Amino acid sequence: MASAAATRCTATYPRSVKIVEVGPRDGLQNEQTRVSTADKVQFIQLLSQTGLRAIEATSFVSPKWVPQMADHSDVLAAIDRPADVSYPVLTPNMQGFDRAVEAGATEVAIFGAASEAFSKKNINCSIDESLARFRPVCEKAGRLGIRVRGYVSCVLGCPYQGSVEPDAVAAIAREMLAMGCYEVSLGDTIGVGNPASTLAMLHVVKQVAPVEQLAVHFHDTYGQALSNILIALQEGIAVVDSSVAGLGGCPYASGASGNVATEDVLYMVHGLGIHTGVDLDKVMAAGAFITNVLGRPTQSKVARAFAPTEISRL
Amino acid sequence: MASAAATRCTATYPRSVKIVEVGPRDGLQNEQTRVSTADKVQFIQLLSQTGLRAIEATSFVSPKWVPQMADHSDVLAAIDRPADVSYPVLTPNMQGFDRAVEAGATEVAIFGAASEAFSKKNINCSIDESLARFRPVCEKAGRLGIRVRGYVSCVLGCPYQGSVEPDAVAAIAREMLAMGCYEVSLGDTIGVGNPASTLAMLHVVKQVAPVEQLAVHFHDTYGQALSNILIALQEGIAVVDSSVAGLGGCPYASGASGNVATEDVLYMVHGLGIHTGVDLDKVMAAGAFITNVLGRPTQSKVARAFAPTEISRL
Repeated sequence: MASAAATRCTATYPRSVKIVEVGPRDGLQNEQTRVSTADKVQFIQLLSQTGLRAIEATSFVSPKWVPQMADHSDVLAAIDRPADVSYPVLTPNMQGFDRAVEAGATEVAIFGAASEAFSKKNINCSIDESLARFRPVCEKAGRLGIRVRGYVSCVLGCPYQGSVEPDAVAAIAREMLAMGCYEVSLGDTIGVGNPASTLAMLHVVKQVAPVEQLAVHFHDTYGQALSNILIALQEGIAVVDSSVAGLGGCPYASGASGNVATEDVLYMVHGLGIHTGVDLDKVMAAGAFITNVLGRPTQSKVARAFAPTEISRL
Repeated sequence: MASAAATRCTATYPRSVKIVEVGPRDGLQNEQTRVSTADKVQFIQLLSQTGLRAIEATSFVSPKWVPQMADHSDVLAAIDRPADVSYPVLTPNMQGFDRAVEAGATEVAIFGAASEAFSKKNINCSIDESLARFRPVCEKAGRLGIRVRGYVSCVLGCPYQGSVEPDAVAAIAREMLAMGCYEVSLGDTIGVGNPASTLAMLHVVKQVAPVEQLAVHFHDTYGQALSNILIALQEGIAVVDSSVAGLGGCPYASGASGNVATEDVLYMVHGLGIHTGVDLDKVMAAGAFITNVLGRPTQSKVARAFAPTEISRL
């Protein structure tokens, strides 16, 4: 842990931040309620009208493992895809990648872990094996002109092995960039990070990766997500993953760990005078739509504060 | 609003932070469920064993206005008060002050607003009138050796007049210190602040008040409380008000605006390597007690994350 004295903040905020909306994939994949293909499509269409420039649409993993995303090809075929919005889809391996390309994906995301224990439990292979699996995917993507985004999970802690060294995060981030990822998203998968551990990790990762190619991805399990994002912004990070309505974890479920809510991120980032191009009201409308489909209250405090009549019905 | 370029952070964190627990007063006063005197006493006793050094115990306002606190003298008489813990009580005027002293209070708090509209609606007088009312209270307190804490509400926005100028906050903070308050707590009563507005306000207030005599008091209405506290810490503020379990606002009530949860503040502050002397586990136990009494889930994300069995029952 960084000492109090070591956590001096020296950077200024970026002038502009890109929000990567992960609700339709990371969010819905972790909700207990199944959502119909038609509702997913309408949800993504609503998000596409908000000014967001990146919306993670679905996942080309085996329906055996993630039945919520079995309709990946149908979703991708049904949504309008304006030229100025990217719709990355998760592809764990070459089979997934090929199916995604067949379905018309123009951007994919690969998913590794900074924790050996998590890698083995979550994707059934060591970190090195996962990298070996991603390399041909990136090569083929490069040949086909398809952009690849890298995810590193467990960057501030692991549910199985506990602590995770910043060096481990830096090593996999560097590898992902080397194999051609245009951006690496650093994920605090279990939300245990705090501003000091976030700062310490970013300091190490920034030594091996250009800050322009880094994104952060926080879960709000311990309520620290926005504070950690604030630190990341102070460190010059200009890409933030978030999930409308905080999709991805139920507030009353055991071990709840939803993504930070897009609405709450926008409130803070806009408050800082940072441009995103995203319309908060329209994002809240998309959030109201999907929480109504799911039949549960939003986890966004901003959405609650701005929509008292909707809340009082719940 | 501060521009992105202007919000450079230059300060280091304090080595030690004092948490002022406001759950028994600010929290319970704003809960819909009435709590018995016996339960309030047990709640405060539990908090007294956590390492907290300041616990706001009750309010000596008229029961006509705040019936939840009508048992103020009984509460104060029944609790043990270890010498190293202070138990401030709210006293809006000389009558309340006299009753508090009679009941054995050794520290009181006065409550002003930085918004003229809020002052008139909330305490039925102008800001100047409220200061004129506080002055004799402070003088008498000084003669009796009773410490006085000052609150300034609406420091980042007002529900009636909207924006509030930092100069207005600075003016009342300076007055309160001049009349003898040992500390002034700056309250974002409606939780609308963001890190930039927090920083801008603090910069102005610090020009008229020593940072050692300033505290911050955030509500989490828009999810910004911890980020704003982080900024306050970066600005050298070393006293933070918070409320165990986020008491003071129901998550599903219209216009919910609970205090930031003590547990979540402790998680962040301890994560930064800052000393508080407070035992998080014991605070969570006090929070579990009072939320059980209230029959509602905790609003602390940390408490939820650490207590899955309790949560799954709700």
